[in-house]
Amino acid sequence: MKIIVVGANGTIGTAVSKELESNGHEVVKVGRNSGDYQMDMTNIEDIKLMFEQIKEVDAVISTAGAANFDDLSELTPESNEVAVMSKLLGQINLVLIGQHYINEGGSFTLTTGVIMDDPIKGGVSSAMAGGGINAFVQSAAYELKRNLRINNVSPNVIEEALEDYGDFFKGYTAVPASKAAKAYLKSVEGIQTGQTYRVYE
Amino acid sequence: MKIIVVGANGTIGTAVSKELESNGHEVVKVGRNSGDYQMDMTNIEDIKLMFEQIKEVDAVISTAGAANFDDLSELTPESNEVAVMSKLLGQINLVLIGQHYINEGGSFTLTTGVIMDDPIKGGVSSAMAGGGINAFVQSAAYELKRNLRINNVSPNVIEEALEDYGDFFKGYTAVPASKAAKAYLKSVEGIQTGQTYRVYE
Repeated sequence: MKIIVVGANGTIGTAVSKELESNGHEVVKVGRNSGDYQMDMTNIEDIKLMFEQIKEVDAVISTAGAANFDDLSELTPESNEVAVMSKLLGQINLVLIGQHYINEGGSFTLTTGVIMDDPIKGGVSSAMAGGGINAFVQSAAYELKRNLRINNVSPNVIEEALEDYGDFFKGYTAVPASKAAKAYLKSVEGIQTGQTYRVYE
Repeated sequence: MKIIVVGANGTIGTAVSKELESNGHEVVKVGRNSGDYQMDMTNIEDIKLMFEQIKEVDAVISTAGAANFDDLSELTPESNEVAVMSKLLGQINLVLIGQHYINEGGSFTLTTGVIMDDPIKGGVSSAMAGGGINAFVQSAAYELKRNLRINNVSPNVIEEALEDYGDFFKGYTAVPASKAAKAYLKSVEGIQTGQTYRVYE
């Protein structure tokens, strides 16, 4: 299959691309400033242009999405916008626009994270985006046409990212990126839709 | 207690106001074009002004929030913005701003609905907002200071609204607004925080 991976240069995206390639898929690596194609998913026109330029796509995977990690007492409507525009709407707009472009029988796989279920200090904005994605995926699956499917992968903190994020996730079970990557492969190659794959241990 | 009800003129808001008043509370009814005070919760400045002008508030209840009910194939990044700005961020911004204003020991109670758990055709945008609120409430509860609390009420389709919405909710169990209103009273007068009260039957 020809598969777009948005965020292919990130910790999860790198592992997902490797897993897909080792299973014989063609991966188009998309990033803001890296990869085969550059695209800013907070920009609706950028997303449209990507789907007009990268044709005959069978699957879209997003492992991208930014959010501020402010304590709630310092979180403002303005600082919350980062998660809204990127992690929430960036990923959702890939689906709203992409549903009209990708091949029949294709799939979307989005990404959230453990903190939507298991909160950490400063994680409110990210949790909000994750909860929104989770409900979107569950609902959208019933309405997608042309046998399109949609799933979500929600990993625990990633082992390779512990140096940067470990202090936020004390006591959490880190999972290797290669293990999380299996859930994306399952979403792409499987029959399921509307699911959130929780890779929490 | 002195309680702000945003959306007090709506079907749920009317029942909630009545329930609170019959329990001896002072209700400040807030609406876009009706009530004791006019405020548009999609406008951040409007929310700030409300908290500056209505003082000594013990609880804030939101029963407001708009969303488009487009089929997914017709839902666009632009039409999805209604739910994002109103149902999702309007309610969340009441908390992000209000946390600095309301009295110690006070509470926030937000509103979602059954379709975040149990999807209907055309409900994707609203479900997304509900899922976001649900995760926000669960996470924010742990971080609120000054003994503030936060909960969410998620009712099934409301009996009094069946004439308008019944066709979307065939086979769902309608609940009277007065029954949903009890969950808001429980949120305001109880000790719990971080909860979603599902009033589904």
